[in-house]
Amino acid sequence: MKKIGIINGPNLNLLGRREPDIYGQVSLEMIQHSLEERFRDRCSFTFFQSNSEGELVDRIQSLAEEVEGLVINAGAYTHTSVAIRDALLAVGIAFVEVHLSNVFAREGFRHSSTLSDKAVGVICGFGPLGYELAVEGLLQELET
Amino acid sequence: MKKIGIINGPNLNLLGRREPDIYGQVSLEMIQHSLEERFRDRCSFTFFQSNSEGELVDRIQSLAEEVEGLVINAGAYTHTSVAIRDALLAVGIAFVEVHLSNVFAREGFRHSSTLSDKAVGVICGFGPLGYELAVEGLLQELET
Amino acid sequence: MKKIGIINGPNLNLLGRREPDIYGQVSLEMIQHSLEERFRDRCSFTFFQSNSEGELVDRIQSLAEEVEGLVINAGAYTHTSVAIRDALLAVGIAFVEVHLSNVFAREGFRHSSTLSDKAVGVICGFGPLGYELAVEGLLQELET
Amino acid sequence: MKKIGIINGPNLNLLGRREPDIYGQVSLEMIQHSLEERFRDRCSFTFFQSNSEGELVDRIQSLAEEVEGLVINAGAYTHTSVAIRDALLAVGIAFVEVHLSNVFAREGFRHSSTLSDKAVGVICGFGPLGYELAVEGLLQELET
Amino acid sequence: MKKIGIINGPNLNLLGRREPDIYGQVSLEMIQHSLEERFRDRCSFTFFQSNSEGELVDRIQSLAEEVEGLVINAGAYTHTSVAIRDALLAVGIAFVEVHLSNVFAREGFRHSSTLSDKAVGVICGFGPLGYELAVEGLLQELET
Amino acid sequence: MKKIGIINGPNLNLLGRREPDIYGQVSLEMIQHSLEERFRDRCSFTFFQSNSEGELVDRIQSLAEEVEGLVINAGAYTHTSVAIRDALLAVGIAFVEVHLSNVFAREGFRHSSTLSDKAVGVICGFGPLGYELAVEGLLQELET
Amino acid sequence: MKKIGIINGPNLNLLGRREPDIYGQVSLEMIQHSLEERFRDRCSFTFFQSNSEGELVDRIQSLAEEVEGLVINAGAYTHTSVAIRDALLAVGIAFVEVHLSNVFAREGFRHSSTLSDKAVGVICGFGPLGYELAVEGLLQELET
Amino acid sequence: MKKIGIINGPNLNLLGRREPDIYGQVSLEMIQHSLEERFRDRCSFTFFQSNSEGELVDRIQSLAEEVEGLVINAGAYTHTSVAIRDALLAVGIAFVEVHLSNVFAREGFRHSSTLSDKAVGVICGFGPLGYELAVEGLLQELET
Amino acid sequence: MKKIGIINGPNLNLLGRREPDIYGQVSLEMIQHSLEERFRDRCSFTFFQSNSEGELVDRIQSLAEEVEGLVINAGAYTHTSVAIRDALLAVGIAFVEVHLSNVFAREGFRHSSTLSDKAVGVICGFGPLGYELAVEGLLQELET
Amino acid sequence: MKKIGIINGPNLNLLGRREPDIYGQVSLEMIQHSLEERFRDRCSFTFFQSNSEGELVDRIQSLAEEVEGLVINAGAYTHTSVAIRDALLAVGIAFVEVHLSNVFAREGFRHSSTLSDKAVGVICGFGPLGYELAVEGLLQELET
Amino acid sequence: MKKIGIINGPNLNLLGRREPDIYGQVSLEMIQHSLEERFRDRCSFTFFQSNSEGELVDRIQSLAEEVEGLVINAGAYTHTSVAIRDALLAVGIAFVEVHLSNVFAREGFRHSSTLSDKAVGVICGFGPLGYELAVEGLLQELET
Amino acid sequence: MKKIGIINGPNLNLLGRREPDIYGQVSLEMIQHSLEERFRDRCSFTFFQSNSEGELVDRIQSLAEEVEGLVINAGAYTHTSVAIRDALLAVGIAFVEVHLSNVFAREGFRHSSTLSDKAVGVICGFGPLGYELAVEGLLQELET
Repeated sequence: MKKIGIINGPNLNLLGRREPDIYGQVSLEMIQHSLEERFRDRCSFTFFQSNSEGELVDRIQSLAEEVEGLVINAGAYTHTSVAIRDALLAVGIAFVEVHLSNVFAREGFRHSSTLSDKAVGVICGFGPLGYELAVEGLLQELET
Repeated sequence: MKKIGIINGPNLNLLGRREPDIYGQVSLEMIQHSLEERFRDRCSFTFFQSNSEGELVDRIQSLAEEVEGLVINAGAYTHTSVAIRDALLAVGIAFVEVHLSNVFAREGFRHSSTLSDKAVGVICGFGPLGYELAVEGLLQELET
Repeated sequence: MKKIGIINGPNLNLLGRREPDIYGQVSLEMIQHSLEERFRDRCSFTFFQSNSEGELVDRIQSLAEEVEGLVINAGAYTHTSVAIRDALLAVGIAFVEVHLSNVFAREGFRHSSTLSDKAVGVICGFGPLGYELAVEGLLQELET
Repeated sequence: MKKIGIINGPNLNLLGRREPDIYGQVSLEMIQHSLEERFRDRCSFTFFQSNSEGELVDRIQSLAEEVEGLVINAGAYTHTSVAIRDALLAVGIAFVEVHLSNVFAREGFRHSSTLSDKAVGVICGFGPLGYELAVEGLLQELET
Repeated sequence: MKKIGIINGPNLNLLGRREPDIYGQVSLEMIQHSLEERFRDRCSFTFFQSNSEGELVDRIQSLAEEVEGLVINAGAYTHTSVAIRDALLAVGIAFVEVHLSNVFAREGFRHSSTLSDKAVGVICGFGPLGYELAVEGLLQELET
Repeated sequence: MKKIGIINGPNLNLLGRREPDIYGQVSLEMIQHSLEERFRDRCSFTFFQSNSEGELVDRIQSLAEEVEGLVINAGAYTHTSVAIRDALLAVGIAFVEVHLSNVFAREGFRHSSTLSDKAVGVICGFGPLGYELAVEGLLQELET
Repeated sequence: MKKIGIINGPNLNLLGRREPDIYGQVSLEMIQHSLEERFRDRCSFTFFQSNSEGELVDRIQSLAEEVEGLVINAGAYTHTSVAIRDALLAVGIAFVEVHLSNVFAREGFRHSSTLSDKAVGVICGFGPLGYELAVEGLLQELET
Repeated sequence: MKKIGIINGPNLNLLGRREPDIYGQVSLEMIQHSLEERFRDRCSFTFFQSNSEGELVDRIQSLAEEVEGLVINAGAYTHTSVAIRDALLAVGIAFVEVHLSNVFAREGFRHSSTLSDKAVGVICGFGPLGYELAVEGLLQELET
Repeated sequence: MKKIGIINGPNLNLLGRREPDIYGQVSLEMIQHSLEERFRDRCSFTFFQSNSEGELVDRIQSLAEEVEGLVINAGAYTHTSVAIRDALLAVGIAFVEVHLSNVFAREGFRHSSTLSDKAVGVICGFGPLGYELAVEGLLQELET
Repeated sequence: MKKIGIINGPNLNLLGRREPDIYGQVSLEMIQHSLEERFRDRCSFTFFQSNSEGELVDRIQSLAEEVEGLVINAGAYTHTSVAIRDALLAVGIAFVEVHLSNVFAREGFRHSSTLSDKAVGVICGFGPLGYELAVEGLLQELET
Repeated sequence: MKKIGIINGPNLNLLGRREPDIYGQVSLEMIQHSLEERFRDRCSFTFFQSNSEGELVDRIQSLAEEVEGLVINAGAYTHTSVAIRDALLAVGIAFVEVHLSNVFAREGFRHSSTLSDKAVGVICGFGPLGYELAVEGLLQELET
Repeated sequence: MKKIGIINGPNLNLLGRREPDIYGQVSLEMIQHSLEERFRDRCSFTFFQSNSEGELVDRIQSLAEEVEGLVINAGAYTHTSVAIRDALLAVGIAFVEVHLSNVFAREGFRHSSTLSDKAVGVICGFGPLGYELAVEGLLQELET
């Protein structure tokens, strides 16, 4: 059984709690539940969410001792944070980048990511399902 | 009576305490006092200052439950933070962007803001008075 | 009692006269009236509007002999006119830049101004109220 | 019978009067005559030419009360004038952009226009005939 | 009687056949018919459409032996194809560039054309009528 | 049972046949087989591969009559083809963009796509598994 | 005896009248007087100044009938006016570009000129003397 | 005896057949003949020309089974085709890039090539002789 | 005896603890020890490390009351943080910028720093020794 | 009597000696002679020409001990040499920049100069006469 | 018998003398020998190498009196020297640009050349053989 | 005992001799003396200064036979010289880049260096002390 960390960045704590007609009614807790259901035979999960870049860096550093791979939705920090990139590189862990929305259909500054070139792969646009696809992609990477 | 939040970003805690010949002798507390004086009949205020981008995101999320509009001086994060923009958009609250100095008369990187296009309006260059003008502008928005 | 000039650039003569559902029903005359009401104890006003860049330069030159400060909404010339910038610099008068709409929420070419870095301050997005806020900001500048 | 305004910008008053070997022997008056001939059954015309950006703005504003559509050859102001763009948008009239020469075969700064994205259509490179094609295009727009 | 070729690029075969509410109900066949009607006394036409850049190059080469001028709507290849530009230059034939929609009102990448600077003229935004205007412009060029 | 088209662009016919140590030993046929295995209860597939941009445009047009959604790996045309984008938009079919490799870890010109902003979602970096993830994402889109 | 026109653009009417410690005490009239003194044997002069781009275009058109060459200090319009460039090209008259200050030592937007590439020559940085040098350069051009 | 493929892109089929005063009277056939003459002791040749990017990709794929190296003049596709680059990389064959004209003396968009950084070497400006020089360069590469 | 603060940004807490073959076996503690050894006669040190931009701003503010100068290795925040720049400017303390690696030999986004133009000097590429060189440079600055 | 240095950069030694139909028949010696004639009552001259950037730096350094001002035509080094700029700044001598041709009418890379912003003034386009105008401008500067 | 000059720029004197495993064992003397062997019936050669831009300019000027064409490998000056370009243009001699390595496969700043657009042709990537190919290309140019 | 070369570029010969209030009273000789004092037990030095790029290239080539490492202050050539970069790479010697001033606090063109990415490290802003720090950094490199 693999151990996988799921990292969520700023404002993702609001998911499903506010404006459900816009963001859907799926909360982070429900995403966690779906993942645990679907992958109960292949891996276990550790979840983390923070609005703080520094806490995300801290947690990536500590998670690297606990898990074998990461799925990260860095939210807004995707486009601005070199520190998170450096944390991922420093601990040398395989990670998949995931976004709920199709970032390429949004503002121009969301088209670039400080993480993508170091990720195993990138998935965007599929809402909560994207986390499941990301885990499947990550597991393939970890198992080979 | 409207309820308005006043958000201040990094280094604004130093206002009036240090180098008063440069930054003036007006502290954030004095700005709060002036606002309460001037608008005592129209609204009440909640103040918040932090040097941390993540805490600013946290507080914008929670303030949105308490107030009807925000005046935000995001300081240096004005030019770099997508996370604060996303927090403001996620909670869907009306806000006015204010700067003490005329940012357009300073370094080039201060000429762009991640917040301006989503603000009700922008005010800069008038020192502490700018907060009062911003509240007046915000109240007009909230009352119509 | 201070004397203040209010300069309006191209197409602002249409304000309130045409498409009131879009631009509101407030005309330049009504803005003038509101200003005179609100500031009747602190200053008097001279108004000018023209669609011609050259006439705006002429009037800035002549107004500088009559008033102590200017509020300028240069309209479309905000983004293209070096001549108006030079006129303001040549006469060496304090001025505040104002825009009815939030220019940062519009086309990219409206995000730059040839005037901002030389203004006391900039105000945009508050409609006609912006002129009042601008005068208040200008008076603070003139009185200190 | 439709009423159409034909607006000509700077230096177009020289047409046909000077250097006929370069600019051809067709003057604005002759263009007017050809238009009136060709479209005598479908529309009448009002002509205006000025070298002044401000006068062009003035006339676009007043013409909008008199005509149902405009054909505009803004000459050099095509590439620099936001004020003319704003005048056309403010009065909300349908217009076609026309150029005598193929602007894309000339200096790089002639390849961009402040008007094109708001025009019904753009026609360039056909000399005086371009005005006739523009009117035909405009009439189709007005009649549907 | 002149002979004119009408070249249509990728996806223009769908015209009128699909989504008539968006693209109109006018097919390429109907455009051909209108052209033959309007210009029956002045010229005859050869039509060609292909979704393949290479076939368009082939046909421009062969058409140059059969016709005296071309009207070309290169569709998406307008913005990317140097090969079509080179074919037109190699055979040295006069051509007019036409677009159904106003390309300047669409995505930024549609604002540049590899063909425009070598065309007699450019026409866009008038739908099927644009072809008629283009032929009229081309005939003037061929007859002088 | 949904019907889904799988479109592959230039050089993908070489997959698994040449340099298996680099590209892996999985051919397009094997990808097709895996997809049919995994999704046999949910959908059937139509496959197409071509090295020609024009043929890809042709097939997208015709496939749109046969299938309810597309998974497209446009290979090198991802970065240069406006014609394929236009074909997808013209037929108005939902599609998912997939890449075998992590395009963001390769040359700069592979970081932009003419398709992404119109896709349901984008998946890259997971090799042949990416097609399976893409189909799963597309099915969710089609079923809601 | 040659006839030369001296054209001055926006804000140059203020020369010597205002802020003499900055702009010097030399007015346009005094520059005219110096020129007439120095060149009384070689040429006569016609002077013109306007703050209006359109009036400058008008006067360049009419002056071209009266004089053999122009010295032009287009002031702020140097950096923004295509219309003045076009007027100079349309009348086909030799001209020298002059600036009182060294424009290359000022703001970046003053480093480009719409006129320079079509001028006989460019002179800047020598204050009023620059006009004399410009006339000397222009006379050499006209006499050869 | 080495086997070498000579690939020619769009419009090169016209060589020598049309406008011989511009392009010279040397056809592709004559170039083939000259090559076979000069290198008859060192190598044999396979020639291919197409106006279609897809066919060029196809042929590069198949030629890689037949020859040891390629000389490629991709014509206009040099500047736009990632697919041809990918085909050359996929088959892993040594190739030399050749152009008849000096591309650096032509339009700016001809100064960049999608192929150059992966070529053994680049030769341009020598007309048909360039093919001979390219083969000599390629043979040296293949023989060491 | 001078008092000097040593500030370390994100991920520098990992130094020497993880992947010693890459980052060396020198930890921040060992760097502190070396500094105290080498400069025991000239100054004392206060150390701080955080992964949080906000905490770094907080500590720069408070350290400015305790020390006379700073050596700062802002890590990833070097390239993105205006807040740290503003904190350093607000407290008006002399600082030296140091990097363990030669940032100019790494990714392009590491070539720019928000701090450099306000630093006494910059040192990079010498590993832990860089801190010693930085202190020596800072002491020279503080002692003159 | 002032002493003035005249510095000429690369390829100016060819002046008048080669291709007199292009460059004129005026050599550097003749320019020197004209200057000595015209200014014999106001100043004496020291001339220097070199094709070497280093020798130009050397000579500017040594000339600064001998003369009160410089006229410099740095030729091609105008556009590339920071070393000559630094030499002029290091010796702190007033200088005028001169060019024989109108550099703004030539290739784009000739439009920028490393010297202009530090010059008293700039003169271009008047051929050998430009040196005389430059000296007159320089003398005015030295005498005030 | 033609006379040809071979010009080599900075660091090419090291060829074959240092790091033979990298740069090969072929020295400039050996290249000279090969050229003289191969072309003994068609031309004679004059060789020159210098690390100094000024000396290269000097020698190009003087060589132009002695030879009929030049082959130039300007080394690092290829990318920075306008002076060498100007020397080649001033003497008006035909030249071929050659590089030992494929400059397009190296750092970005090596992709542009100040010489290419004025050369007869450009050859790169073939090592010492490139000089032979360049001479063959130059001879063709000189003989026609 | 290591042997180290100290290379100084253009205008550094003026150090301490001219304008001592600006550049300090420390000459290159005094820098040499300080270095020899401080490092007498660890290394000996060879000094070189030249204003000529070519001589600097020559000397770097020859010094590489005499010393084990270089400290280079290339002055203005830092920002323009590819030839010096190539010389350093060709001889393959370890070097440290040093600048007296903080180049990042000066003009934009001084922020880039052709040398930095190949240096062991970079030091700027510490005046003459920078050379000592550079040598200490270089010795660490040479001794490990």
